[in-house]
Amino acid sequence: MKAWEKNIRSVIPYVPGEQPQQSEIIKLNTNENPYPPAPGVVEALRSMDVDLLRRYPDPSAHDLVKAIAEYHGLQTDQVFVGVGSDDVLAMAFLTCFNSGKPILFPDITYSFYDVWANLFRIPYDKQPLDEDFLIRSKDYQKENGGIIFPNPNAPTGIAKPLDEIEEIVSQNQNVIVIIDEAYIDFGGESALPLLAKYDHLLIARTFSKSRSLAGMRIGYLLGNPELIGYIHNCKYSFNSYTMNQTAIDLGIEAIRDDAYFLACTQKIIETREWAKEQFRSLGFEFLDSKANFLFVTHPNHSAEDIFPALKKEGIFVRHFKNPKRIRNYLRISIGTRDEMETLFAFFKRFIS
Amino acid sequence: MKAWEKNIRSVIPYVPGEQPQQSEIIKLNTNENPYPPAPGVVEALRSMDVDLLRRYPDPSAHDLVKAIAEYHGLQTDQVFVGVGSDDVLAMAFLTCFNSGKPILFPDITYSFYDVWANLFRIPYDKQPLDEDFLIRSKDYQKENGGIIFPNPNAPTGIAKPLDEIEEIVSQNQNVIVIIDEAYIDFGGESALPLLAKYDHLLIARTFSKSRSLAGMRIGYLLGNPELIGYIHNCKYSFNSYTMNQTAIDLGIEAIRDDAYFLACTQKIIETREWAKEQFRSLGFEFLDSKANFLFVTHPNHSAEDIFPALKKEGIFVRHFKNPKRIRNYLRISIGTRDEMETLFAFFKRFIS
Repeated sequence: MKAWEKNIRSVIPYVPGEQPQQSEIIKLNTNENPYPPAPGVVEALRSMDVDLLRRYPDPSAHDLVKAIAEYHGLQTDQVFVGVGSDDVLAMAFLTCFNSGKPILFPDITYSFYDVWANLFRIPYDKQPLDEDFLIRSKDYQKENGGIIFPNPNAPTGIAKPLDEIEEIVSQNQNVIVIIDEAYIDFGGESALPLLAKYDHLLIARTFSKSRSLAGMRIGYLLGNPELIGYIHNCKYSFNSYTMNQTAIDLGIEAIRDDAYFLACTQKIIETREWAKEQFRSLGFEFLDSKANFLFVTHPNHSAEDIFPALKKEGIFVRHFKNPKRIRNYLRISIGTRDEMETLFAFFKRFIS
Repeated sequence: MKAWEKNIRSVIPYVPGEQPQQSEIIKLNTNENPYPPAPGVVEALRSMDVDLLRRYPDPSAHDLVKAIAEYHGLQTDQVFVGVGSDDVLAMAFLTCFNSGKPILFPDITYSFYDVWANLFRIPYDKQPLDEDFLIRSKDYQKENGGIIFPNPNAPTGIAKPLDEIEEIVSQNQNVIVIIDEAYIDFGGESALPLLAKYDHLLIARTFSKSRSLAGMRIGYLLGNPELIGYIHNCKYSFNSYTMNQTAIDLGIEAIRDDAYFLACTQKIIETREWAKEQFRSLGFEFLDSKANFLFVTHPNHSAEDIFPALKKEGIFVRHFKNPKRIRNYLRISIGTRDEMETLFAFFKRFIS
């Protein structure tokens, strides 16, 4: 070890889903949207005022914040935007989870929560999902330094009813409760109506799934103006200019075109429900996903066998090796109907 | 105070330079480039493969990293890219400055250093510039947990000769030394040749000044592969996907067009040198800037009088109220020759 290495922070790096570079593949491994972004987004890209590129962007990304606030019927000071939901969630962790008590989140959930907690030295206590892979409300009644979970949860896809969400929120008014709604547009019930009632609630959203803009890195938080203000201050102290000009301009168009958004999410929901039937008829078992993916397992074929067989066919899905309980599951993003037909054609051959 | 507020991190927010929204102004307050980005950048924007937007970008931004490495004659594992130099510098602080000893940087310098140190709870000890606003090498010989300073320094614009930089680097081999070269392309001597000799050296660069892409938020670090690897690990643990697809694509074109880059920086250098003569003939005093701005003061007119008078004319410059020693200075970015002519026409009226 060199002398300078003793002061280097060591972390366990997160391993993101594969981004294969071949073009002739079916990519169902990172929950991307199979449909292109709204026509207005493309138009905004092509017609952008290029002279803006040499200037710093508006650090408050006000025009984008305004478009998001208008979409949700909120005030602009209730919106915090950032570089994907990873960025806004990390900023929320950094700003809001400064208690000595552990924050609580499920043991099977989005794999970044414990990574951020480790990075910021936030104590945490993972709460096991029940035997049906459900989040147990009673696990979130103990003393804690904050709460976060996705709704629908990932990678299970299971949505928690709004009354159960409210129960957890109302029982934890001394800490910040974050509901990560990355997948809410595919059928779950949003906690948005609770914002008017609870000022310790934060809702996180992303443009990466339902708005077909994973490539642009846009996420946001919704909350009460005071809390959002604290997060802004923390973020400004760190890096004022994070949203680049193209993200601001394209994001505005993505959120404005509600008809396109609803049509796309509806197509994905229909494909998901149809895919459930297909999986069922092939003997798969799966959880009742309200997200843009299904979490499936087969009693006679191990995930460790199916995964490489799919890859050989040019079909990429996601396999988590940990925790052990989900090792025999595959998370399969909902693609176009055509992509899913190809998937099931393979499975028909593979299973029989 | 509400119960949930007790765990909120409180910070002193950084106040960025004004981004006035009027169009008919002369903006010399944030060191932006007065010339548009390279023609290839515009072409890349117009011809972008829109289908990429729905997919996550390559988290390693490999194509951009490769273009930067090739430009500098380095290996790809010596390059770390991020969302502006603010992002890459913050990541370097987080990764490299984990000693109990204070890090050292000048008292008059880029205003984010102490903000990041406060945020990450890194102790620091500011070293006063000498009577000529120079960084004194001997101040960086004491025991420390790391060193950072810009070269040329900001807002003075003064460049430190390479032999003096090397002296500081060679005397501090137990810690990481970061040279922030945001303004190096306007006449200073880069520390790049030192990279082959010292593995505890990091050089930070940005696309925001010399490459006319402040709006795209692109910065990078250069260092030895091991050190760059540590920073990558830290960054991946925090947010894998930060560079959006447009930043990657446009950045590649900006760094490839060396002829355009050299022509633009040369024009700015010429305008700066001409502006020095103009300021001198008007009785201003200023430091010998090698950056794309001048730091000026007038013996008979206070900065606090000049600043609002300029603003009234639609000319925006930067005035720092702290520290007290620079309160009578204005930092004026180098605009086009036309913009500077307008500035001096005003000064001729104002001074007489």
